[in-house]
Amino acid sequence: MTAYDDLMAFERDTQALGQIAGRLGWDQETMMPRGAAAQRAEETGALQSVLHSRRTDPRIGDWLAKIEDSKLDQVGKANLRQIRRGYQRSLRVPADLAAEQAKLHSLAQGIWAQARADEDFSAFAPTLKQVLQLKRQEAAALADGGDLYDALLDDYEPDAKAADLQAMFDALRPRLVALREQVLGANHQPAALNFEFKEQAQMKLCREVARRFGYDFSHGRLDKAVHPFSSGSGQDVRITTRTNLTDPFNSIYSTIHEVGHGCYEQNIDAAYLLTPLGAGVSMGVHESQSRIYE
Amino acid sequence: MTAYDDLMAFERDTQALGQIAGRLGWDQETMMPRGAAAQRAEETGALQSVLHSRRTDPRIGDWLAKIEDSKLDQVGKANLRQIRRGYQRSLRVPADLAAEQAKLHSLAQGIWAQARADEDFSAFAPTLKQVLQLKRQEAAALADGGDLYDALLDDYEPDAKAADLQAMFDALRPRLVALREQVLGANHQPAALNFEFKEQAQMKLCREVARRFGYDFSHGRLDKAVHPFSSGSGQDVRITTRTNLTDPFNSIYSTIHEVGHGCYEQNIDAAYLLTPLGAGVSMGVHESQSRIYE
Repeated sequence: MTAYDDLMAFERDTQALGQIAGRLGWDQETMMPRGAAAQRAEETGALQSVLHSRRTDPRIGDWLAKIEDSKLDQVGKANLRQIRRGYQRSLRVPADLAAEQAKLHSLAQGIWAQARADEDFSAFAPTLKQVLQLKRQEAAALADGGDLYDALLDDYEPDAKAADLQAMFDALRPRLVALREQVLGANHQPAALNFEFKEQAQMKLCREVARRFGYDFSHGRLDKAVHPFSSGSGQDVRITTRTNLTDPFNSIYSTIHEVGHGCYEQNIDAAYLLTPLGAGVSMGVHESQSRIYE
Repeated sequence: MTAYDDLMAFERDTQALGQIAGRLGWDQETMMPRGAAAQRAEETGALQSVLHSRRTDPRIGDWLAKIEDSKLDQVGKANLRQIRRGYQRSLRVPADLAAEQAKLHSLAQGIWAQARADEDFSAFAPTLKQVLQLKRQEAAALADGGDLYDALLDDYEPDAKAADLQAMFDALRPRLVALREQVLGANHQPAALNFEFKEQAQMKLCREVARRFGYDFSHGRLDKAVHPFSSGSGQDVRITTRTNLTDPFNSIYSTIHEVGHGCYEQNIDAAYLLTPLGAGVSMGVHESQSRIYE
């Protein structure tokens, strides 16, 4: 085994553990009994501690130092680039902070869902404040004196800067606002739907729509969640939707959107399964596929 | 922090990770898309490697050496007894074997479920043979020259020996066989049911039965699985059942049986959550509650 092989074998297990963390998140939002929230937060915290300690394992530094990049093929070089980047980022975040964030986010999800059901923002506000406080600590650790927002943005859109995105949105804004006004001001507005659509029928239709859009149910599933999301990659990519008794388009468009994310992950070459190249490259690319589908 | 506190904090995270492993098993048998089997085996293998390395962490030995048992209360002493026992057992099983077994068992579950659906034992036989081979290796490692069966029995019924159980079953057998013959030979046999019972109605009835038997759905859930089981402990104890269109008693008795297991775990004092005392003491005690309920 070369240092590269050792590093990639270690990385593969870390990726597998990361997939488990994702699955726990999915479970929490779809299947978990409500009373399990506190225990789940401890479970999530324990797993994130393991992940953080693997992502900052000094052996990674040793392997990286030994590998001669120039002897690797294109895929090997791309793997190394991702691993180096992740290692440097992980080293900056203290282990305690990573575990504390994982626990808090796990607890916050249930509090948010309940507050949303009760339409009571004040019930979630104190938790949100804690989330933001820890996120600022993480940003400060990552930024190392630089811009806090840019430091966090890097997790979603590698190498992007807030200023560049601002310029892009500023350029898009006039035409998008005008288009929206044109649509809202049109003479022909669709009539409001005024009867109820059974939840079961909506879910059945959503499954059929997902299938027609190319979503592979042998490597995925569709369930209900408070807020629709897509999770997982490789052989197990799960999507969720929500239903509204009087507005079936809510579930249909949500499903199509998540199918866009899901198809992206399901169609990544299996050769990259559980490697740093086995998931989407950025939020922007991911979201562009989901928006195009939608 | 005393050595005891450090050990218990470490143990708590290990227990939390063990709960995650259990949840992955539940997911695999109830929710996982079929095509995810190979990836799940890697995920399970990675998590079991982490668990094995924690369970054999040399720091456990150091902490155990430092703690003065005599200064602990009854609960502390019981915790130490369990941790010592687990540590000694884990040290005997090579890490590679633990990971290999976890991967194989994860893969085997899907192969078994398919073979069962096809009523084709030969499709599962080669996998079963591998399972047995690895189990024999584990037994040999644990037995250290002693009896292989006794070595494995210890995981289910601590300190029991096969010979003692054999003597117990030999004593029970005559009366049980006679009772069975009496039942089968009775004049009044229940008439066979000859119509179909909708799956949805069976599941609804099973949920109601579970509730009446004291199962707490705020800390659990009931789903379908190929073979009924109970999993998890503390705040998240999940049970499964199976349905048979022409035999509703299958789902009813299965449910009641698993409710027996589930209620046992749900009613363990919350003070023992994620500690070595937070789960059933033996298979015999667990099964006695499930059988009494049934």
